[in-house]
Amino acid sequence: MADWNDKQPDLQQILREMTLDEKIAQLIQLAVPFYEGAKDGGLITGPMASLGIDETTVHNSGSVLGMAGAQEVINVQQTHLEKNRHGIPLLMMADIVHGFKTIFPVPLAIGCSWDMELAERSAEIAAKEASVSGVHVTYAPMVDLVRDPRWGRVMESMGEDPYLNSEFARAFVRGFQGEDLSADTDRVAACVKHFAAYGAAEAGRDYNTVDLSDRQMREFYLPAYKAALDEGCEMVMTSFNTVDGVPATGNAKLMRKLLREEWGFDGILISDWGAVKELIAHGIAADEREAALKAMKAGVDIEMMTSCYVKHLSELIESKEIDEALIDEAVLRILTLKKKLGLFDNPYRAADPQRESEIVFCDEHRRAARELAVKSCVLLKNEGVLPLDKKQKIALIGPFATSEDVLGPWSWTGSKDDAIKLADGMRSKLAGSAELLVAEGCGIETAEAQQWQAALAAAQEADMVVLALGEHSDMSGEAGCRADIRLPQVQLELVRSIRSLGKPTVVVLFNGRPLDLHGVYDEADAILEAWFPGSEAGDAVADLLFGDANPSGRLTMSFPYSVGQVPVYYNAYNTGRPQGAPDAQVRYVSQYLDIPNEPLLPFGFGLSYADFEYSDARLSSDEMTSSSTLSVSVKVANKGAVAGVETVQLYVRDLSGEVVRPVKELKAFRKVSLQPGESCVVEFTLEEPQLRYYHSDLTHSSDAGAFIAYVGPNSQTNTALPFRLIK
Amino acid sequence: MADWNDKQPDLQQILREMTLDEKIAQLIQLAVPFYEGAKDGGLITGPMASLGIDETTVHNSGSVLGMAGAQEVINVQQTHLEKNRHGIPLLMMADIVHGFKTIFPVPLAIGCSWDMELAERSAEIAAKEASVSGVHVTYAPMVDLVRDPRWGRVMESMGEDPYLNSEFARAFVRGFQGEDLSADTDRVAACVKHFAAYGAAEAGRDYNTVDLSDRQMREFYLPAYKAALDEGCEMVMTSFNTVDGVPATGNAKLMRKLLREEWGFDGILISDWGAVKELIAHGIAADEREAALKAMKAGVDIEMMTSCYVKHLSELIESKEIDEALIDEAVLRILTLKKKLGLFDNPYRAADPQRESEIVFCDEHRRAARELAVKSCVLLKNEGVLPLDKKQKIALIGPFATSEDVLGPWSWTGSKDDAIKLADGMRSKLAGSAELLVAEGCGIETAEAQQWQAALAAAQEADMVVLALGEHSDMSGEAGCRADIRLPQVQLELVRSIRSLGKPTVVVLFNGRPLDLHGVYDEADAILEAWFPGSEAGDAVADLLFGDANPSGRLTMSFPYSVGQVPVYYNAYNTGRPQGAPDAQVRYVSQYLDIPNEPLLPFGFGLSYADFEYSDARLSSDEMTSSSTLSVSVKVANKGAVAGVETVQLYVRDLSGEVVRPVKELKAFRKVSLQPGESCVVEFTLEEPQLRYYHSDLTHSSDAGAFIAYVGPNSQTNTALPFRLIK
Repeated sequence: MADWNDKQPDLQQILREMTLDEKIAQLIQLAVPFYEGAKDGGLITGPMASLGIDETTVHNSGSVLGMAGAQEVINVQQTHLEKNRHGIPLLMMADIVHGFKTIFPVPLAIGCSWDMELAERSAEIAAKEASVSGVHVTYAPMVDLVRDPRWGRVMESMGEDPYLNSEFARAFVRGFQGEDLSADTDRVAACVKHFAAYGAAEAGRDYNTVDLSDRQMREFYLPAYKAALDEGCEMVMTSFNTVDGVPATGNAKLMRKLLREEWGFDGILISDWGAVKELIAHGIAADEREAALKAMKAGVDIEMMTSCYVKHLSELIESKEIDEALIDEAVLRILTLKKKLGLFDNPYRAADPQRESEIVFCDEHRRAARELAVKSCVLLKNEGVLPLDKKQKIALIGPFATSEDVLGPWSWTGSKDDAIKLADGMRSKLAGSAELLVAEGCGIETAEAQQWQAALAAAQEADMVVLALGEHSDMSGEAGCRADIRLPQVQLELVRSIRSLGKPTVVVLFNGRPLDLHGVYDEADAILEAWFPGSEAGDAVADLLFGDANPSGRLTMSFPYSVGQVPVYYNAYNTGRPQGAPDAQVRYVSQYLDIPNEPLLPFGFGLSYADFEYSDARLSSDEMTSSSTLSVSVKVANKGAVAGVETVQLYVRDLSGEVVRPVKELKAFRKVSLQPGESCVVEFTLEEPQLRYYHSDLTHSSDAGAFIAYVGPNSQTNTALPFRLIK
Repeated sequence: MADWNDKQPDLQQILREMTLDEKIAQLIQLAVPFYEGAKDGGLITGPMASLGIDETTVHNSGSVLGMAGAQEVINVQQTHLEKNRHGIPLLMMADIVHGFKTIFPVPLAIGCSWDMELAERSAEIAAKEASVSGVHVTYAPMVDLVRDPRWGRVMESMGEDPYLNSEFARAFVRGFQGEDLSADTDRVAACVKHFAAYGAAEAGRDYNTVDLSDRQMREFYLPAYKAALDEGCEMVMTSFNTVDGVPATGNAKLMRKLLREEWGFDGILISDWGAVKELIAHGIAADEREAALKAMKAGVDIEMMTSCYVKHLSELIESKEIDEALIDEAVLRILTLKKKLGLFDNPYRAADPQRESEIVFCDEHRRAARELAVKSCVLLKNEGVLPLDKKQKIALIGPFATSEDVLGPWSWTGSKDDAIKLADGMRSKLAGSAELLVAEGCGIETAEAQQWQAALAAAQEADMVVLALGEHSDMSGEAGCRADIRLPQVQLELVRSIRSLGKPTVVVLFNGRPLDLHGVYDEADAILEAWFPGSEAGDAVADLLFGDANPSGRLTMSFPYSVGQVPVYYNAYNTGRPQGAPDAQVRYVSQYLDIPNEPLLPFGFGLSYADFEYSDARLSSDEMTSSSTLSVSVKVANKGAVAGVETVQLYVRDLSGEVVRPVKELKAFRKVSLQPGESCVVEFTLEEPQLRYYHSDLTHSSDAGAFIAYVGPNSQTNTALPFRLIK
């Protein structure tokens, strides 16, 4: 136990004084409307009635979902403490996913920055804004590994690579929690989610079945959660999906055995919204009583927004189906986090209306958001038309030209009204030079004739067209799954229509998933993937379009050739009949008849206005051992006319394992900033632990044998450097 | 040991007399060109050179791949026996998948017949024709469960249901092997494939990675292989894919532990083509030596078409990495099957050129093929236009109007020249009544203006249009995978073009997979799914079109709404947030934003010219126990004007299990033939073993609790009959 736990209060003493009902009530988490002191809160009818709980339960409840705002939190906490006979404060939790009021790019975009410092900084700022607004815990980071762009929540993830996701998991936890949650009240506790493998939902349909071998789970899906916990993440949230036939929320093998026993996690495990009761719909519980039994046995401490625990734990203890010690453990974990956050000492923690008004959405935070947005955009194509010439007459056309819908899903605390629209960002660049023609052309999914004609007229008049296209934010995010991942038909028609005018055309994409870019990639002269860039969207994108900043983002999720290729990801296995092998037959190889095996744009891909050239890739030796390291070096030169940042990537392939191994695995990367004409040597060190993998018996170790190191600008690099691991 | 094994010869004695090299040579399987006596056979250059084997190895080899033809087999066997000092005959093996010369519908179509007697009969006829042509073993049945129509080999499978696939597995094994392989030389040994879970290839790309939990493997993928073995299937073929990270061909857990030890299989395990050497490409063997080591340790007896065993087993025994006893076991299994087939007694078995010419493709066999083809077609839609009126003027249009490509993949022993084209089948119905206008319109993937115009003219002239559309046979089958599963664009344009004429239009589909039918289903007045119907295609389809037979086929694989919905199958899990639940929210349920969750056409679906009405569905009790059975009955009446066959289906849902359970599982079905106005009561008996499933610890048992029985015409029936299992 850490020092802080030896201070006041004595949690065991509180626990002893609590009745069983009071303890059980600590385990429920309710939304804001249940609480007196909240706007429209504390009503006995409505939500409370439908959950079948009473006022006493609310007064003894342990935590609140979705509350943010210093004064409201203070009011609710104050009222609560007046009613709670033990003076146990409420934990205020909320989804602060990519910023609080200052909205940063969506996590998939942050992933594309490959920038751990900025990612950490974004979480630190989110924590500071949330904290001063009364939030104690954020349900973040979401670190689910993803391979299926149909799934709407890929925008919350950092992509398809377990190493990169793990690095981001650590960065976000550091940013949210800081070094000492007790001392630093500008931080919030983090809750890593969704444990486990939520991102592997079958057919890319949210909440759908997940089925994986245990080995695949450990190799790809679990590392990022583990990394978050290694970084000290305080909480874990269960996922909605099944894991090997058992919903995570009722999965004792996953939670008790792996998370608690094997990994030693002793923080709070919380269900996702309603997930305890959903055990009934899943079909592993006949009723709410059995749902409570299974969730508690699995180790779920807090039941979010359903009342199975409150209604049935008491009788389950009476019938001896559950040991009261399990309840005590859960309550103690909750009290422990409250104590760690100093809530027994100061139940309002950092909540402060005055400071809130100063800190939240301040210029410093917005500058950080703009910087991260700039680094998150990925230049997908550029046939010499970008950056834009400020003296040209530019027509900005498309549904995202003047849209405020640039924050992306999970930005409920942010304000669209405060977001910088692309037209405004571009206009501020052009002030005093050329005029910007702006026309919507069409909506996201529909068009009116007048809009359309106005757009064609604007394009006709301009030297250059910028098409701002994409998905509205409800087309991704939770339950935002699409079977067709192209841009909506009307936007594809707009592209064709505009292109027929023969003007150079740049497409800027605002969207929450890798898209099938047929009809865009083949038509546009340049494409900038802006994702949902957040509050500073327009300024950040304008920085890149006009060359005031140089694109440096790199994809962390493959853009499939078409939805019929899904799932497609770079770290796949070779199969026994790989395409392109020297002895491959014409037909009998692993391939499609109608499309390539490769995605349209691979993991790690991204262009720059600079021009980077790789040479002199070499190894320090063609052998390494468990004690000797290997150095991989490559020279990178900027042959272009502008400064730029290159992300040099190191991949390794294990040619022969006890189980099959990916054709490439990212092992390290380095971002280097080079002036025109400048060059540098990037050196990586490979050590034996980086060559370890999960064997069929789930042990994690390396095997002697042949490997290949690949170094280059993205996952399709074929600069192969063979070496051997000697043991 | 069975009686036959106590007769001559003494296999142990032969084994003792064999040198190690001779024993190892028994384990290789080579294709026809290696053998003297075969057409173009016995050349020391070419194939032998590239495999790095010598004449002596060929003379001691154990089996031949792909040989069929009585005289050629006799020649090869005779020559071989002259060279083999122990007089060990060759085993002649070949892919006889859905017929030998008399080609039956592809297996996916046979699946749609739901007719085990006819399926068995088709295998019996195939065995008879193959056997008299010198074949001893067929690499069939293929019983891989499939859920992804992108995969080209779904046409070889019976679909997405483990129960139905198991029934077919048994029927095919009975048909191929008969009751006594030793006595009945008109039968061949069966080789069930591809062990295991080949049908779960990721992204529907052939040979691709398979990753499943052990439980999912046992619940869905393994039952049909096991059923084949329970029926006495002599051989098993490994699959190309990985199973939990280890390619099946090198997977000791799968082969030694599960197949041999747990299931007690003591027959021959053969690799698929080249699969031993492919362990190198998979990346679990560094070289051919390690590939030989892993395959032999896994339990692979015969190495097909690569020479890792021949080149390396000897040194692996010397180095004590392999025990010679493993080789002896493998050789003994091979000799045992040769003995069982009576080859030591009569090495030519049923091979007989004279009888071959009488039996093969005889009228009796062709009648059976026509009957099965009729029963395999599925009527997908019928807006009152079918059956056709023989007095109408009909235009038959489309690439399959006069195509001979109706046998489907895996029909290499059949002859397209002998296949009945649709135009010929229809013309023979119309002889003496109306004229049939025939025009191709377009090819499978391209069109010429003249063709197109001729088709439009024919349609214009006709009262009724029949469009014969589809995929050519190379678009499915091994390595025949498509990312876009619509009809080729040109055919969709043909549909639109013809439809614009306003004539009633029937589409007949020839294809090897469930298609995305957008542009067809919405356009046509009727659709008959003919699959690849085999030798008698034209006659069988004409029987149905003109109402001389009544469609009775039922889909055994869902037709997806679009490729973005894949995988979609009826026996899925409910999830925690099912669509359509009473308390479901608008957004936060498991669904797509743009398409329904349901496939376009579900498992079990198929129309008839009759009109079946269900009523009086009932249970004998609302409870059952382990010793008491439950009777489920329903009244089915033919309210239509013609006789027809209805397939009454019984599904069960286990509402709450230890692991999640499918929303429906097929438990039984009954085909009933009803005259117009006739009705009958169909009664099923449910017993406790039918309610068993694999628990998380992989035990197979049932749980007390609530169930629902559903009875109706397809898997979307909602006639729900709740009952409880009491234990």
